[in-house]
Amino acid sequence: MQRILGVLGGMGPLASAQFMVRLTLLTPAERDQDHVPAVLWSDPRIPDRSAARLAGGEDPLPALLHGLRGLEAAGAGAIAIPCNTAHGWFDEMQAATSLPILHIVDAAAAELARLGVRAGPIGVMGTTGTLAMRLYQDRLADRGYECLVPEPEEMARQVTPAIGLVKANRVAEAYGPLAEVAAALMARGARAVVLGCTEIPLGIAAGPALPFPVASTIDALARVSIDWARG
Amino acid sequence: MQRILGVLGGMGPLASAQFMVRLTLLTPAERDQDHVPAVLWSDPRIPDRSAARLAGGEDPLPALLHGLRGLEAAGAGAIAIPCNTAHGWFDEMQAATSLPILHIVDAAAAELARLGVRAGPIGVMGTTGTLAMRLYQDRLADRGYECLVPEPEEMARQVTPAIGLVKANRVAEAYGPLAEVAAALMARGARAVVLGCTEIPLGIAAGPALPFPVASTIDALARVSIDWARG
Repeated sequence: MQRILGVLGGMGPLASAQFMVRLTLLTPAERDQDHVPAVLWSDPRIPDRSAARLAGGEDPLPALLHGLRGLEAAGAGAIAIPCNTAHGWFDEMQAATSLPILHIVDAAAAELARLGVRAGPIGVMGTTGTLAMRLYQDRLADRGYECLVPEPEEMARQVTPAIGLVKANRVAEAYGPLAEVAAALMARGARAVVLGCTEIPLGIAAGPALPFPVASTIDALARVSIDWARG
Repeated sequence: MQRILGVLGGMGPLASAQFMVRLTLLTPAERDQDHVPAVLWSDPRIPDRSAARLAGGEDPLPALLHGLRGLEAAGAGAIAIPCNTAHGWFDEMQAATSLPILHIVDAAAAELARLGVRAGPIGVMGTTGTLAMRLYQDRLADRGYECLVPEPEEMARQVTPAIGLVKANRVAEAYGPLAEVAAALMARGARAVVLGCTEIPLGIAAGPALPFPVASTIDALARVSIDWARG
């Protein structure tokens, strides 16, 4: 196991820490030396991605590229970014590095396939930035999925506040609103729900398992990272 | 929050990932930007520390110094090492870097004080290497603690196999043997038990809370790291 995974994280820091936990737990291993070597660049100072896209906030790209440079210097052979919204800058990041960046939406599609959902209507929960940039809607349409997203009022009253609760370490409180919106997407005809913001699986894990298929983008990205590391 | 914490990890990888989780959850924060910037160098290929000390195994020091160099290059201002046994090479590491290394045994002592245990007999569970090197016995004697350690048979039958189970992702199975040994140390007169191997708090967290004070060296190191980061 010689390939080093570079993890551009801190967006938020709990999500990237949990990504490291899941990367470890999903790796078949008997001892330390069987696990994936990785460097996590956890920079929670990176400017807010949704605010940058939707409200004229500070551009996160310079901080993202700074992290990429650090991971290159550390010897990384590929990059995983456990933040969906940051993938709004995917093209600029990929153009700036020769390392492959494992796209989180492609990882989510692989996870949906693993769950047996290969096309059709799916629910996608994410930040306002992720949904406004159509990161899922456009990329998954090419694969035969139709993305149902929360209503603006559900975003404002439930999803966005719940993501903020996770970033503020109030994880258990995030479960209720997130579970309600996921159920509403299923009621609208979704065959599964993608937890398309890496804070959302943390909130969903804080309560009873949902009675329908959900694709965690933390686990999804961890699985493709392990596949890459194991060649 | 501008100081970057360097985390020399991967020993084992689940423990250092969980260290990042606890570093985040123990930080007072309302949003991403309130959290501690950190770089985790997770290198599970570092040769086994106990095997090096006790069985003539490969020396881990070159790999430890390589990680330190990587964290220096990443801009770290201090180093935390969420592996107790690696502190057997503390002096060599500290001599090789100008960055302060936050000593995990001092962090454990601070955690004992926080629990209200300021001197007297305490239990210490750790790897065979940590106990044979007397990392706790000698350093805590200076502070007025008397360290009780598991019997050789408890090490061979319970503690060492349980640490291996955590490294092999079989965390839940580690609870029983670890809880038994902790209780045995209390029965021998300990006032609290230090979980002096960072795999041990993971196993202990997988079952009911123990009915006596325990000092997790993951949480202990996270607290002193946060104190450092917040200046």
